[in-house]
Amino acid sequence: MFRKLLTFDEAQETIRKRFRPKPLGTEKIPLLEAHGRVLAEDVTSGLDVPPFNRSTVDGYAVIAEDTFGANEKNPVRLVVCGMVNTGESPTVMMTNGRTFEIVTGAPMPKGADAVVMVEDTEREGNRLSISNPVAKDENFMKAGSDIKKGQTVLRTGAILAAREIGVLAAVGRATPRVYLVPRVAVLSTGGEITQPGKRLPAGRIYDVNAYSLCAAVTESGGNPIHYGVVRDNRVALEMALGGALASADAVVTSGGVSVGPRDLVPQTVGSLGKPGVVFSGVAIKPGKPITFAVVDGKPVFSLPGHPASALLVFHLFARPVVCGMAGRKAMKDPKVRAVAGMRMFPAKGRRTFVMVALRKDKQGRSVADPVEPGASGAITTLAKADGFVELAEDVQFVDEGEEVAVSLFKSLR
Amino acid sequence: MFRKLLTFDEAQETIRKRFRPKPLGTEKIPLLEAHGRVLAEDVTSGLDVPPFNRSTVDGYAVIAEDTFGANEKNPVRLVVCGMVNTGESPTVMMTNGRTFEIVTGAPMPKGADAVVMVEDTEREGNRLSISNPVAKDENFMKAGSDIKKGQTVLRTGAILAAREIGVLAAVGRATPRVYLVPRVAVLSTGGEITQPGKRLPAGRIYDVNAYSLCAAVTESGGNPIHYGVVRDNRVALEMALGGALASADAVVTSGGVSVGPRDLVPQTVGSLGKPGVVFSGVAIKPGKPITFAVVDGKPVFSLPGHPASALLVFHLFARPVVCGMAGRKAMKDPKVRAVAGMRMFPAKGRRTFVMVALRKDKQGRSVADPVEPGASGAITTLAKADGFVELAEDVQFVDEGEEVAVSLFKSLR
Repeated sequence: MFRKLLTFDEAQETIRKRFRPKPLGTEKIPLLEAHGRVLAEDVTSGLDVPPFNRSTVDGYAVIAEDTFGANEKNPVRLVVCGMVNTGESPTVMMTNGRTFEIVTGAPMPKGADAVVMVEDTEREGNRLSISNPVAKDENFMKAGSDIKKGQTVLRTGAILAAREIGVLAAVGRATPRVYLVPRVAVLSTGGEITQPGKRLPAGRIYDVNAYSLCAAVTESGGNPIHYGVVRDNRVALEMALGGALASADAVVTSGGVSVGPRDLVPQTVGSLGKPGVVFSGVAIKPGKPITFAVVDGKPVFSLPGHPASALLVFHLFARPVVCGMAGRKAMKDPKVRAVAGMRMFPAKGRRTFVMVALRKDKQGRSVADPVEPGASGAITTLAKADGFVELAEDVQFVDEGEEVAVSLFKSLR
Repeated sequence: MFRKLLTFDEAQETIRKRFRPKPLGTEKIPLLEAHGRVLAEDVTSGLDVPPFNRSTVDGYAVIAEDTFGANEKNPVRLVVCGMVNTGESPTVMMTNGRTFEIVTGAPMPKGADAVVMVEDTEREGNRLSISNPVAKDENFMKAGSDIKKGQTVLRTGAILAAREIGVLAAVGRATPRVYLVPRVAVLSTGGEITQPGKRLPAGRIYDVNAYSLCAAVTESGGNPIHYGVVRDNRVALEMALGGALASADAVVTSGGVSVGPRDLVPQTVGSLGKPGVVFSGVAIKPGKPITFAVVDGKPVFSLPGHPASALLVFHLFARPVVCGMAGRKAMKDPKVRAVAGMRMFPAKGRRTFVMVALRKDKQGRSVADPVEPGASGAITTLAKADGFVELAEDVQFVDEGEEVAVSLFKSLR
């Protein structure tokens, strides 16, 4: 019961050594459903973009030298020999003295090397007057000037947002190959836990963790499977954990990892497969009672029952693993500098994470105020905190006004 | 054709005046499906959280004064009268000299005002020795200490992420009321546009905008409806736009808003309902050929055909409207300071947005390099840019090394 706990760094190192997260496989999906997914291939373009010399204005395709010297008083006159529309494939050949009307996006006729904007022209029948010269290569994009055939436009691991999806469309990739989304089972344990929406009997509280952790799994690139509340008895736990391990790629439980007589999760996890529990307990605050296990190649995180602790410990230990299984690169928390709004103490010998809310003081400095100077485990801590300050094990204290780095919680905006 | 264009500020102001975006209604949804949705109610708690005095450790519930003076040599001895488990509702009454075993999360027996941690005790049968005193109120949370009954825990407009969802669960809100997600129809126009995945005939290019704009709608809190490519003829456009307006809450088209003979979108939009086109053309670069219309109370944005321009103009004008219809508060782009990597010029008399990529120089400063010093409309611009620098209409130029503010594109991480 008083065995030595792993340090924070040792725990992270141990997880990395004992479970190297990797994607579970790949699938091809329609581009319209690819938003937020992770690319599982380097994408090279099978075509030049644009595939042809393409006008970027409405006007007249010309041989640029024909327009040299043109001005309002002495316009150049050319003969309009036809029109090129978008989607056409002109076979005509330009020669000096001739021009073709052309619209934005249409292919240039062979021989043309510039486009005069319609604003700089006057037309009567097939006679065109040009009042401004154009330089060679003006007002059109050359074939392949944007993307060359064979060019790599996106690489494995890219997260597909609006811009990346646009690039995939441009090279005609209608069904990109992406990584499978890891399925993460989320279970709550505890005899006092009741599902939100049900009547709350005396002595009970509503389940918070299953819901907040499902959302955290989504935010880490995983697909949460909500298992709800499991009673704290061995048979119920074995059945639930066994089912979770059979149907999911990873399991996250909360509650039941303290030292009480009902803390059966670590024991039960250990009995379900090899190697079982890797460590129980880490010298951090909050979140000390975390158990990490690997069961037949699947990671199992047993988090504390307190909602703020559970979400923080998920963030510190489980999120990097879920991200890795989703094919996402390790993400560092965005950090901002601030000054401590009050003195902060680490728990003796433990890496301490102080939840803080940010505000601006009169001098315009960012100030980090601890949101939970009192008891741990408050749910409102979650709602109030903008991020956390990490205090090393050997720090005496951080004084009011000292500079601290605040790791920001991901915002959904 | 040479009418005066609205300035950027005038265009934004005009949109605000002519279409005040508001949510389309509300619905109640299961909490597990609420991730990313926008709360449409102030949520007050119907209960104290915790609902009862709740032990935060495994140990023994006591009357604190009974333990005063306890130490290793002179432990205090109490009689264990029973045990309180989680989920129970103890009716027992504590009196001096007595104690109850209690587990983490269990309700305190009446009269108990502290919990001694199990580590500080030794037990033989029903006799307990306590070697460390506890103070009043130690090791339990008082009823309502986290959230008081009647307290407002979340407000209308909150975007529901892991922490907010945890708070809703804590107060038992299983089906929060959220705003309806606005449906935004996305159409591409142009005779040269082909769907990705199909063979590309000569003279054609793949549709980029329908895909990147659908993703941008998602990122703005809307639900995109992909209408694909519509031919640039009046009948096809009228049918497609009519259908889009009938089934969606807003419409975004791209292409076909320049001054060419095929630019039928503004004309067609104008014929479909009142008031029709509000403005065509804004003095910005890129993105000048944007049309904004309101048709029977629904906003219609006709964006340029160039992919980078379309996405930028969506960001500048359409995104705030979609966000407003989704019930989200106006969001400012996150900005970072950087120095210009080369001299940047605004287009004469136009608000100019220069796409830039960020890098660190040898001194560790952030440098903003324009990614598209040459032709506009490149798709690769999208992939390379980290954000954009805004140049005012009356600026001559921003010199290399001058400080600029870079508006960052939203990252999905």
